[in-house]
Amino acid sequence: MRIGIVAPSCRIDEDVVSRVSVLAEGRAELVWHPQCFLSDGHFAGPDAARAGALIEVANDPTIDAVWFARGGYGACRIVDAVMGGLGEAARRKTYLGYSDGGTLLGALYAREIGAVAHGPMPADIRRAGGEAAVTRTLDWLVDRNRASLEPSVGDAPTVAFNIVILAHLIGTPHLPDLTGHVLMIEEVAEYLYRTDRDLAQIVRHPSISSIAGIRMGRISQVPENDPDFGAEPEEVVLHWCDRAGIPFLGPADIGHDADNKVVPFGLTAPPQPLP
Amino acid sequence: MRIGIVAPSCRIDEDVVSRVSVLAEGRAELVWHPQCFLSDGHFAGPDAARAGALIEVANDPTIDAVWFARGGYGACRIVDAVMGGLGEAARRKTYLGYSDGGTLLGALYAREIGAVAHGPMPADIRRAGGEAAVTRTLDWLVDRNRASLEPSVGDAPTVAFNIVILAHLIGTPHLPDLTGHVLMIEEVAEYLYRTDRDLAQIVRHPSISSIAGIRMGRISQVPENDPDFGAEPEEVVLHWCDRAGIPFLGPADIGHDADNKVVPFGLTAPPQPLP
Repeated sequence: MRIGIVAPSCRIDEDVVSRVSVLAEGRAELVWHPQCFLSDGHFAGPDAARAGALIEVANDPTIDAVWFARGGYGACRIVDAVMGGLGEAARRKTYLGYSDGGTLLGALYAREIGAVAHGPMPADIRRAGGEAAVTRTLDWLVDRNRASLEPSVGDAPTVAFNIVILAHLIGTPHLPDLTGHVLMIEEVAEYLYRTDRDLAQIVRHPSISSIAGIRMGRISQVPENDPDFGAEPEEVVLHWCDRAGIPFLGPADIGHDADNKVVPFGLTAPPQPLP
Repeated sequence: MRIGIVAPSCRIDEDVVSRVSVLAEGRAELVWHPQCFLSDGHFAGPDAARAGALIEVANDPTIDAVWFARGGYGACRIVDAVMGGLGEAARRKTYLGYSDGGTLLGALYAREIGAVAHGPMPADIRRAGGEAAVTRTLDWLVDRNRASLEPSVGDAPTVAFNIVILAHLIGTPHLPDLTGHVLMIEEVAEYLYRTDRDLAQIVRHPSISSIAGIRMGRISQVPENDPDFGAEPEEVVLHWCDRAGIPFLGPADIGHDADNKVVPFGLTAPPQPLP
């Protein structure tokens, strides 16, 4: 299996390559696009370079999966160009990432292009426990190992998004219709009043308000605010579920951390019976 | 003239009342709703109290104008309830505020309720030069003094919004159709990558993409980012104007500061000839 790696948002350093390559040895060929190491201000190269690399890898029939190297910020600047550049070979691939990469996952899923999944990225190797996180994604990409999956993934179609990223898909052609889906959400390093504001925008949007329910991943590293927001993260999520009439289904084992599990978008094939 | 003051977002302290009342003496009766001083976590009282106070003052036929006491965060939590509660008397009033209050200004303007204007609020009295800012709004509310206006306000219909607040109106029933309008935007204390992301969502939305142009108010107190974003605020605005084919019309004299000018929403009556 050949896995193409591109960086639609921020760049990665060479140490990520060596450390992740060790884990993939004998399992998959990792094809690190040189764009991953470009630098242009905030971004892993100019918009045209980032879009071009992703289109090139997605349209390469010898590549089986596209793995986003890292999040950060930048996917929303290239998503229009990327969607306009994908050909037939792009439909026969898995795309995997999370965080800022959710912009692209949403856009791909909205167009039913490829198999889309939320999960750990190469740059997660730098976290404590990062080897397990990266191996979890490899286990899914190479073997479709169900042990990599968020444990509640099951009968209902599912998606997973960072909350800010989902809020910024609202009103764009890249927001999938999530009717009937279980929506897993997670957040990192956002003031709670901002998460509250994002959820206000999210839960009542027509493409989202008829979801099957929300599962709450980790809302972590919340900065202290003055005045204190006056509610815990779970209360904020419950508040907006209640206001929108959306069932709250409990926790989701996802987040900006090494425990982040894989969530394939849509319906995931059930476990196969032993032969 | 009677001006009702409510706090749809965060609370104010009593010192604001005394300092602003001095400036209004002999010009207008300020009716400070007790809700302004409530406290509930982040907010000036629970959602129901904030919505109730605004509805009460808006529907009071003895009140001529509704002045938002302060921004912060909270208007998006009550905007649905407020819009559902406004009666006929609410249509014959001016509504003025900015920042978080833009959520309500947008919702009112979308429904053609009252005369809506962006401008300094009572809590601005605490800024250096705050007396001038507050007097500027009183001059507009009491005398429709054109010296209070943002100097480019003229022939085209105009609106003014904080960038984050406008981004969060996207996909809600509270976003006005801004076709043909001059859109003035301002921001405070946001990382540039966030403003970039907000503009990506804003400029291509169908209700916004056919505006007459963008004027850029102050984008101030931008926190340093690592890595540096690699562009100045004006470059960011120009980038998105260019991508969306929206004319960039130059600066706007608005922002989170004491120089913030008044911007009536829609068409402003031209200066009257002397009798």
